[in-house]
Amino acid sequence: MDLMPLRDLAEKIFNDIRELSFDGVGVTRASYGEGESAAGDYLTRLAETEGLLVQVDRAANIVFSPPNLAPDEPAVWVGSHIDSVPQGGNYDGLAGVVAGLLCLIAHQREGATKPLSLRVVAFRGEESAWFGKAYMGSSALFGKLSAEDLALTQRSTGDTLAQYMERAGADVSAISNQEVLVDLGLIKAYIELHIEQGPVMVARELPVAVVSGIRGNIRHNRIECLGDAQHSGVVPRWLRHDAMFAVSDLIMRLDEHWRVLLERGTDLVVTAGIVQTDPAEHSISRIPGRVSFSLEARSKSTDTLEAFYQLMRAECSAISRERGVKFNFDRRVYSEPATMDGKICDFFSKVCEERGVPYEVIPSGAGHDASLFANAGVPSGMLFVRNQHGSHNPHEAMEIDDFMLGAQVLADALYQII
Amino acid sequence: MDLMPLRDLAEKIFNDIRELSFDGVGVTRASYGEGESAAGDYLTRLAETEGLLVQVDRAANIVFSPPNLAPDEPAVWVGSHIDSVPQGGNYDGLAGVVAGLLCLIAHQREGATKPLSLRVVAFRGEESAWFGKAYMGSSALFGKLSAEDLALTQRSTGDTLAQYMERAGADVSAISNQEVLVDLGLIKAYIELHIEQGPVMVARELPVAVVSGIRGNIRHNRIECLGDAQHSGVVPRWLRHDAMFAVSDLIMRLDEHWRVLLERGTDLVVTAGIVQTDPAEHSISRIPGRVSFSLEARSKSTDTLEAFYQLMRAECSAISRERGVKFNFDRRVYSEPATMDGKICDFFSKVCEERGVPYEVIPSGAGHDASLFANAGVPSGMLFVRNQHGSHNPHEAMEIDDFMLGAQVLADALYQII
Repeated sequence: MDLMPLRDLAEKIFNDIRELSFDGVGVTRASYGEGESAAGDYLTRLAETEGLLVQVDRAANIVFSPPNLAPDEPAVWVGSHIDSVPQGGNYDGLAGVVAGLLCLIAHQREGATKPLSLRVVAFRGEESAWFGKAYMGSSALFGKLSAEDLALTQRSTGDTLAQYMERAGADVSAISNQEVLVDLGLIKAYIELHIEQGPVMVARELPVAVVSGIRGNIRHNRIECLGDAQHSGVVPRWLRHDAMFAVSDLIMRLDEHWRVLLERGTDLVVTAGIVQTDPAEHSISRIPGRVSFSLEARSKSTDTLEAFYQLMRAECSAISRERGVKFNFDRRVYSEPATMDGKICDFFSKVCEERGVPYEVIPSGAGHDASLFANAGVPSGMLFVRNQHGSHNPHEAMEIDDFMLGAQVLADALYQII
Repeated sequence: MDLMPLRDLAEKIFNDIRELSFDGVGVTRASYGEGESAAGDYLTRLAETEGLLVQVDRAANIVFSPPNLAPDEPAVWVGSHIDSVPQGGNYDGLAGVVAGLLCLIAHQREGATKPLSLRVVAFRGEESAWFGKAYMGSSALFGKLSAEDLALTQRSTGDTLAQYMERAGADVSAISNQEVLVDLGLIKAYIELHIEQGPVMVARELPVAVVSGIRGNIRHNRIECLGDAQHSGVVPRWLRHDAMFAVSDLIMRLDEHWRVLLERGTDLVVTAGIVQTDPAEHSISRIPGRVSFSLEARSKSTDTLEAFYQLMRAECSAISRERGVKFNFDRRVYSEPATMDGKICDFFSKVCEERGVPYEVIPSGAGHDASLFANAGVPSGMLFVRNQHGSHNPHEAMEIDDFMLGAQVLADALYQII
């Protein structure tokens, strides 16, 4: 199967969908929202034009299949997601869906009579930016969205995830009952192509990489630090309960723990992505009485995540005592680290070597839908495509030639996996 | 002049105005906005009912006078402000205006034929919470609002201070030309009664205090820290440019400097009242690329303010180098410390002693309109009234008996000052 004749089509798809979801700065495709739906509708029309079968699964994800593939025929799944963070980039997620579609389209255009045992899935709701929870579309498939998850609210509208999923056509009562919505016996393997979101491949001049495993994470979407809001001019230092000084103190202590843990060779990154004094009451001349913030630690090791989490809680207790503040934690959200299937990794490596593509086997710092499949026991594999300027920002810049190379490696390996 | 018969009237005024400006949590009387205007209208109606003359000056402040006081007759001014911070308390500012009005009303009700040489001014726009600039109403009177100040925008609507002042009836072109809008020869002295905004008087069981001087401050309303927004999972620690870690670092370094300066006996408080990752792009899984924050230092000493400011700038430079971020500063805003008139302080002290009122002479940590008068050469004095739970919050709780005692001390002293 040769994907190279589809290079212009691929470029057109990326351009059209960027335009559909451009927000003036980057692209915005909110989970179960407007931009994501527009991208899904576009891909549906395109697939139907190419003679493919398009279905929406019970979790509102979009599934593309060859028209003559029997519904009970086991197949390899290729997938990724079509949502984005606010003011994000065009390729994070979308690239993997387009790569899968190109395989289906190439096979269809080649006029083969035997159906390709391949289903392509476009997941909705992968980004945690919208509801504070990642992998919603794939979690729903595996019965891993809880009622608590479904009650999470969207960052701007305040509507619940349940409401959004229902509007998108999902079977929310089955999801809420944590039913497994997919027959695992029909999934031979799960493959995901994704842009690299870090700086490694650009630095090492690798167009393609094979992913060995995926970092897990521990998060709180919202921790509140409560101090005492007072006029800024009149309370001496030793009588203050300044919530912002307390949160800064916490961040600096965690930064120091992080530094020390790295020196011991631990895999870890730490981020406080959202930090805010309370807009309803903050002012230049008021000691902050309430600061809300998110906190996230990622690691390939479950033990590191747990140890760092306990350190964090211990520091919060110490700061509470020292500064007279209080920390309130929302639910702890945990995403397991995942290991990719060794045999699939070998297929990818072999194809790269045969085609003379420079590659390396590297871990994924970011989480992906592939984790859900791997942790459900489905043999899973991932390919990274080189990408400039990282992701989750408007400047991500995958080159189309790198993408086509990655998609071709995926297509070649497919035949071996199928 | 005996104010005690007016105790019920005072209580009614406070209750009525609280109700007019209640926001569900505290009171909100935005500078040149709705709640402030409602309070001004209420006081105007009340004063007119009592037979007083009410005028709006060229800076939109409200001036109350005895009906028979000649316009060119020098008089003592008693005043304070009628705005509040968002979700603030009822007494910060309002108490001083009510105290002055009670003097005028008592004199009027006593049927004296000789006019009292007293004007009472209700300043608009004292709180910096709304436009990032304090003492706007009194600054305008003294020609101390610049065109740059007038271009400041309101925290929620984005309209300029000039637009707000114009709508309130101010002569914005004269203010913009920095004309002095008041004849200093007609102001014999300026007296301000205000609730204490700190915890000292409650701790020392003092219903009334005499203010010796007022802390000045140096501020930036908005400093931006710019880093590099990237996916939180994929950038290792040594490649990160995390704007939130950088701002936390700055706050902790300033906290340490502050601690050391206090040990050397310096007068200083430091506050970062507003801190926010950029709501347009922040997310749990993104390294913050942009954090905006306010920073304020207050001290009785001009030298301390300047020295601390230079320390702050030096730390920003160091953090910029170490963490690969950039700090952008808006205009530095400076309010001079002020000293109260010794003779007026002595009058206050003498009255307290004669009436057997426990009092002390203490400095003011917060700024007040009185600074503007003192620094313009007008002999100025301030009285504090005890107040529970500090100010700039919904829980401030002055007791009406303490207020009446403070107002009576003011009334008694007035005769000696006039």
